[in-house]
Formats: sequence, C-alpha cells, structure tokens
Amino acid sequence: MSELLLNHLAGRAQAGTGSGTALLDPVLGTELARVDATGLDLAAGFAFAREKAGPALRALTYAQRGALLAAIVQVLQANRDRYYEISTANSGTVKNDTAVDVDGGIYTLATYAKLGESLGERRHLLDGEAVRLGKDGAFQSQHLLVPTRGVALFINAFNFPSWGLWEKAGPALLSGVPVIVKPATATAWLTQRMVQDVVEAGILPAGALSVVCGSSAGLLDQLQPFDVVSFTGSADTAAIIRSHPAIARGSVRVNIEADSINSALLLPGETPGSEAFELLAKEAAREMTQKAGQKCTAIRRIFVPEALYGAAAEAIAARLAKTTVGNPRNEGVRMGSLVSRAQLFAVREGLATLKQHAQVLHEGAAHALVDADAAVACCLGPTLLGARDPDHTPAVHDTEVFGPVATLMPYRDAAHALALVRRGQGSLVCSIYGSDAAALGAAALELADSHGRVHVVSPEVAATHTGHGNVMPQSLHGGPGRAGGGEELGGARALNFYHRRAAVQAATAVLSTLA
Amino acid sequence: MSELLLNHLAGRAQAGTGSGTALLDPVLGTELARVDATGLDLAAGFAFAREKAGPALRALTYAQRGALLAAIVQVLQANRDRYYEISTANSGTVKNDTAVDVDGGIYTLATYAKLGESLGERRHLLDGEAVRLGKDGAFQSQHLLVPTRGVALFINAFNFPSWGLWEKAGPALLSGVPVIVKPATATAWLTQRMVQDVVEAGILPAGALSVVCGSSAGLLDQLQPFDVVSFTGSADTAAIIRSHPAIARGSVRVNIEADSINSALLLPGETPGSEAFELLAKEAAREMTQKAGQKCTAIRRIFVPEALYGAAAEAIAARLAKTTVGNPRNEGVRMGSLVSRAQLFAVREGLATLKQHAQVLHEGAAHALVDADAAVACCLGPTLLGARDPDHTPAVHDTEVFGPVATLMPYRDAAHALALVRRGQGSLVCSIYGSDAAALGAAALELADSHGRVHVVSPEVAATHTGHGNVMPQSLHGGPGRAGGGEELGGARALNFYHRRAAVQAATAVLSTLA
Repeated sequence: MSELLLNHLAGRAQAGTGSGTALLDPVLGTELARVDATGLDLAAGFAFAREKAGPALRALTYAQRGALLAAIVQVLQANRDRYYEISTANSGTVKNDTAVDVDGGIYTLATYAKLGESLGERRHLLDGEAVRLGKDGAFQSQHLLVPTRGVALFINAFNFPSWGLWEKAGPALLSGVPVIVKPATATAWLTQRMVQDVVEAGILPAGALSVVCGSSAGLLDQLQPFDVVSFTGSADTAAIIRSHPAIARGSVRVNIEADSINSALLLPGETPGSEAFELLAKEAAREMTQKAGQKCTAIRRIFVPEALYGAAAEAIAARLAKTTVGNPRNEGVRMGSLVSRAQLFAVREGLATLKQHAQVLHEGAAHALVDADAAVACCLGPTLLGARDPDHTPAVHDTEVFGPVATLMPYRDAAHALALVRRGQGSLVCSIYGSDAAALGAAALELADSHGRVHVVSPEVAATHTGHGNVMPQSLHGGPGRAGGGEELGGARALNFYHRRAAVQAATAVLSTLA
Repeated sequence: MSELLLNHLAGRAQAGTGSGTALLDPVLGTELARVDATGLDLAAGFAFAREKAGPALRALTYAQRGALLAAIVQVLQANRDRYYEISTANSGTVKNDTAVDVDGGIYTLATYAKLGESLGERRHLLDGEAVRLGKDGAFQSQHLLVPTRGVALFINAFNFPSWGLWEKAGPALLSGVPVIVKPATATAWLTQRMVQDVVEAGILPAGALSVVCGSSAGLLDQLQPFDVVSFTGSADTAAIIRSHPAIARGSVRVNIEADSINSALLLPGETPGSEAFELLAKEAAREMTQKAGQKCTAIRRIFVPEALYGAAAEAIAARLAKTTVGNPRNEGVRMGSLVSRAQLFAVREGLATLKQHAQVLHEGAAHALVDADAAVACCLGPTLLGARDPDHTPAVHDTEVFGPVATLMPYRDAAHALALVRRGQGSLVCSIYGSDAAALGAAALELADSHGRVHVVSPEVAATHTGHGNVMPQSLHGGPGRAGGGEELGGARALNFYHRRAAVQAATAVLSTLA
C-alpha cells in the first residue's frame, strides 16, 4: 500500500484510523498515496486553533505576521522542485501549468507578506476617518477593523491545490486568523505536503495552519459564530453549506466561489486578422488549454460579431490544432491531463450535452495522445463548439464543462453581445477585446455588475496584459450570482473577510488612543 | 369593518382579495385598519421593479437620486403630524418615542440625501486607486462599485415602521436599487402610509418603492441572483431565509439583523455617584424604558464592579420608579405600551424565564397604569433584574426579552467583565462608562470584534454623546454572531450592500474613460 499522508490538526500530525482513499496519477493510473480523516477529534482541533493559535497570531502585528508569510515563502521556494513533481504526478500538469498553481500561490503569498510589512506594527486597522456626531465635535465615530476571533475553514477545489490554499491562507494568516484547510481529495497531496513543510519548519504558532485530508464529514458542524468558511466548488455544495445549521443559525461568515461560465467578447469594429481579433483568438485558445481548461476563470463562451464568426472559428481552431496533448513528462506535450477519471467522465458528459445544441468547430477527440494510454490517461484534446443561435441555446449559457471546452457564438450588435454575456447570470471574469478605448470602457462598465473582474485587452497591452484567467492578487476574485457571490483577493480588500468592522463612538481623547 | 390598506406594487395601488388581518391599537384594543396581500401577482411586481424602476433609477446620477431622497424628506415632513397619530395609535408610543422612529427615519433619509449630493453627477463609484499590474504601468487594475441590477426586498421588524424603512430604503434608492418593503403586520400602518404618501407625490420612478402588507408568503420565492434581501427580526426566521432555495442557490446577498443581548459596562475605578456611575444609571434606565424597551439596540445586560452592585441597583431602580407607564395620549405618561398582546405575552414569558435565575431589583408589575385598562392595554412597567453569579447564569446571556427588562450583574475585574460581555455571542452595541481614556479605549478595542458598535461614555461627553441605543447613520449598525452578522448604515458604507464590486483590468487609456 502507498503512504498514508498525515493530517495536521491541534498542533500535531495525526494519522486517520481508516484504510484511506487512494490518490492516483491521472496519466499513469498508479496509486501515489492515501488520505484519511477517520477518527480525528475535529472539535479538539478547532478549539486548539481558536483558543491557542488565534491569540498567538493576534498578539503579533501585521508586520510580524507579514514576516511569517515571507518565511513561508522561503520554505515553499526551497521545496519547489518537489512540488512540481507532486503536481505532475497527482494533477497531470505540464510545467507551465504547474507554475500557475505552485508559483502563482507563492507569488500571491509573497504579495500578502509585503502588504503586512506596509501595514506596519499595529494589531488593528482604521476604517476611514473619524466623523463628528455631536455638534461641537467632542463626540465622534471611528470605524475599526479588528481580526475575528475564530477559525478560517477552507474547503478547496481540486484544480488549485497550491494557489487555492495560499490565496486564502495568506490574507487569513495576515489577519491573525488560524487556518484549517480541507483540500479536494483527488489532488490533496500537494496541499498536504506544503502544509506539512510549513508546519515542520516551525514558522507559525502551533495550530495556526492545519490540514485535514479525506472526508469533509463533520467539519461544518464545528463552526461557531466568529469563525469563517470559504468554499470553492459546485453550486450544489455551496447551497448545502449555506443551509447548514451551524452557518444559517450562527451567522458564520461564508465566502463562496461556485460555477462560472466566463466570456470573451470581441467588440464590433474589428476585422479578421486585426490585432484585437488575433488577441482574442490567442487568449481563447490559451484559456481552453491551460490546465486542460480546469480553471474556474477559464473562457467558456466566446462572442464575436456575426461577420467574424467563421474567421474566428478558423483562427481559434488553428491554434488548438497545434496543441499536443498527453503525458506531461514528455517535453513535447503542451497540455496534460484532467485530474481524475471522474473529471474526464464529467467533461465527456458535459460535452455530449453541449453537442446536442452546438456544432463542433474543432474536435478534441481527434487529438492523438502523446506518450499516454488513452485507456488509462485522463487526457482529452481541446474542443471548440459553435452555436449560431445563442438566444435560443440556453445550454451554452448554463452548462459549465470543466475542461478544455468553449463555445463560439455570433452577436448582432453591442447591445446583443452584452445581453448574451449576461446570460451567464454572474461570472468571475469577462474579457473584452477591441481597439477603441471609449467602447472598451463602456462595455467594461456595463458588465461590471455581473462580473467580479473585467479584463480588457487592447493592442497597446498585447504584451503586458496579465491574461483573462490569471488571478492577480491585486484584483478582486469572485463573482455574483451563479459564481457564488464571493470576494477574495483584491489587495488589502481580502483582509475584510477575516476582520470585523465596528464603529467606536467616543470622546476625541478616547479615540486618540486607538489611532 | 376598518379600512383595508392598499399595497403598492408594480407601480400601482393593489388591494388584497382576502378579508385581511386587523391592526389594533395596543392601548385601547380597538381595530384601526386591515392589511392583506392575498392574490397579488408578486412575480409581476418584482419584474416591474427590476425591469422598469431599476433602469429608471440607474439612469440618474447619485446627486439626482439624492435630490429625490430630499424630496421624499419634504413629503414626510409635511405629513409628520399624521405619522405621529398613526404611531401613537398603532404602536402605543409616547411622543418622544415616536420621534425616535419618525424623526429618526427622516433624519437618516436626509443624511443619505446629502451623501448623494456629495457623490455628485456620476453613476458609478471608484473603489480605491488604480494599481499597476504590468511592470511598465501600461496595464492596471481599477476597482469599481456599480449598482446591482436587481430589487431590494426588506422584511422589517415591528418596532421601527418608519426608521426601519428609511434606514434601508435611503441607501438602496441612492444606490439606484428599487425597494419592496414587507413591514411587520402588527405595526404596518405607518410604513404603508409613508410609502403611499411618497408614491402619490410622484417623486420616484414608477415601481421604485413598493409595499406589501400582510403575509410574507411567496416573497422570497421571487428573489433572483442580482436581488438583495435585508431582514430584521428573529434568529429563527433568519435561518429560514438563509436556507431558502432562491437565496442558497442563487447567491442572493442577504443582510440579517437578529437577536442581540446588548451590554452596558461600568469600568473599574468608579465610585457610587461618580459622574461615570451616574451616566451608566441614567443610560440604563433610559434604554430600558425608551420605546418600552422594544429596540434591537436596547441595553439588556448591565455589568458593574462587585463593590458597586448594590449602589447601581439602587440608582437604576430609583430612576425606573419615576417612570409613569400607560396611555401615551396622557401627557403625564413617560412610557407607552408594547405593540401587541403577542409581544406582551412574549415579554411576560421571557421575564418568567429570567426570574428563575435572577432576583428582582425593581418590579415592573408594581407600576400602576395611567389612563389605561390593564386588561386591555399592552403596557408593562420596567423590570430590573439582578444576577449575582453571571458566570453560572447562562439564561441572562442568551435570553433576549424584547421589552422594558434588563439584568444587572457584578464582575470581579476588567478581564472578567470583558469575558461576560462576550457571553452575548455577538451583539449590536455595547456601551462602556468610565473616566480613564486609555482604559476606555482598551476596552473598546477588546469588544470591537464582537460588536458592530461600541459606544463610549465619559464625563466630557455627558451632554453630547448620542445615546447607547440610538443608531446614528454615520455609524455601522449590525453585529456579528447572534446579532445576525449584518452591516447597515455607517455613512457611505451602506451603499456597498447595494453595489457590486468589480476589478477592471485595462490599459490606462481605457481606465481613464471610467474616472
């Protein structure tokens, strides 16, 4: 049997008492390790984090906690090669895609380390200026942000075992809130190893960073009013979390990132081969294939002017055709595998649904696998679909196929395009391509209420824009409606979720002690 | 039969088709009016608000919407005498208590009218500065706040039919979001009349302000992903709302204000009769009796140093003894009635529970009613209870008796006091009394994470502080945990709930079009 990975809870390593669930190599099909959470005393683990680690973290200043994050960055950098190996083995990713997860996570953590330094030697934040309440100015109101005195529970998705951990843990730990992460089982190894490395390095107070691998049973039952929970995954699970008695009754703060059927939109006024046209085609193909399309932010719907539908189909398909798919260990492979057989089947099922309503513009199944056995490997070539009548094709606006799949659609005019994008009912991100600054700005403003992020690509930023699907820690990550309604990152905004806001109304002399 | 009050929905007055529910005078027991929502086409009403009123509001600038709020203030001022009559009849309040609701509502609305003016001729807000994403500064991220394109549903409590409407509707309308209010049935008349007056004045776009009186059945089913719902009431109902499929599935944004067992704390170092001591006694008595204790923010628990327990009991009781209780129409009456027989019974039941664990320091039942029939009027004198061993008396920390009732408790030292206050598990407000600025500031900081507002009273603000229970629009209103986890008011912060935040990543030239 493979190694049983340890949980880290209540400040110590703890093995589950069950036989465990196997983690597999999605390309080779071999067993890599096992995870198990059977028999853990979750109540004791949460209490330890809440009562021991929380006060220890909160006794530090933001700058001190930022220094801890910087020390974590050092540990992660030192072990980076091992993380790449784990990612390739357990997630089936090529190096460039591993970088998005591993290096993206480290970069995000480093960003919050720097933010901590800039916040300085203080233990609470001022929120705005004091305002006068009485007529003579002797009595004023000053809003504060103070760390919540609870635990942050993360229930994470399988696609970003590193970035998904650090983009949440960075802001939480910087805020003085201990973290308990439950990674998705299929790819739990990388999360487990990173937490273990950090715990063993002795950087953080005991119990400040915990990992529970395997079943999530009982985790939500532990939540108390000052805890927070952040979930990335399906809308079905999100609804269960919101309705859980501990959350619905205890007003536990919840952040949800759920389904998102993101769009790319080429504005009117472009021609085949124009710079903006080419930028759209390039980004669409990149988003479809990066991490085999297993990104919450990936482009799923592509909207172009009617007259450009054929040219766009050709341009994107031509790029997809060049994508080599297969074993990520082979240097010639550009796109690795999906993370599991379950995901492969789910993508095939979603594709079958969409194919009932769309034409195939590029067939992913036609890609021969490089260095991989199609009977074993969870590999699938990228498929571009086309839907000529998007007004009457609800499936393409409602179905998130979490793999290398997108659908191209034509629109009549700008208003039609915006209405079609909004059919996603709230998304994480929309990218807009064009060359007229005013039109780009107007479209971005129109789409801002239904997207957490609007990414605008114009020729002058062709080389410098950060990518449709790439989540920068400086920008908000989350989206309304179907996307779950959550907010993460956005620089210092991320700290809000882990702080409580309060108005202190007092005499000026009292407020001056809080400055 | 009494008058059947009209609902206002889908831009027109609509009578329910049922026989209705009677609204009663809680002092005289007479029937005042009836409300009914039977047969309303709620789906059409919500769609009208969402599709007609929303775009009309959003076409205006903040300054223009602020001007609409100012026009509403004028209408409300013009009809103020009538609102006082309705409040006395339907809520049983004396003039000073009516003022808290009616004039407090108008003042809050006027504050948001002024905020609109200050926000100027724009239709979206910038959230922070642009930050560089690319190395050369050509590609940047700018966060925006844009109005959500949905409806704001308010499910309101019986104690503030005016203020509860306007403290929510002011920020919503200023944000460009149409409002549908469902007032608590017992005191719905004032809300209904105010909405009707504003609708008939023709100030707002059709459907921008709606009122549905009577049953709330079916209202939550109408909610869609870009709508928001704000609820003030019990934790039981709050849990039902959070778990409702339209909300749990559609990520509808929810604001909850639920139970709150607020505290007043006299810091160590005071003596009987010291200024801070007297300020505590005065505020405790005022909070217990204002609006007959029917305020979410009222003081329910009073903590004093052990040595001052007896003196504090005497000082508060002496003030309570002077409170005349009865018919609010009688000029000699200081405290009117509870709003209904149901509330009277609920308060008596809660009192009976607390009396099992506490001694009676002042007996409210001993107050003779002035000008009111005890067999009919929902009047009850103020009761001060005492619990000598608060560590082992969980009922006093967990039971919110929504009437003129509070419990005095002794503490050993400052740390003990803070721990006892936190036993409320999250409250709207805590007031702290003392004369040492550093100690007051330190206590405020310790309590900031478990309270939405900390109100600090020291001798220099004896005459100018705004009151423990008085909600100022400049300060946050809401509280974590048991208090529901919501955030309202706080000046411009109130607009956040009705806006969506988005990061726009674009070339500098594109961002400049959004300034």
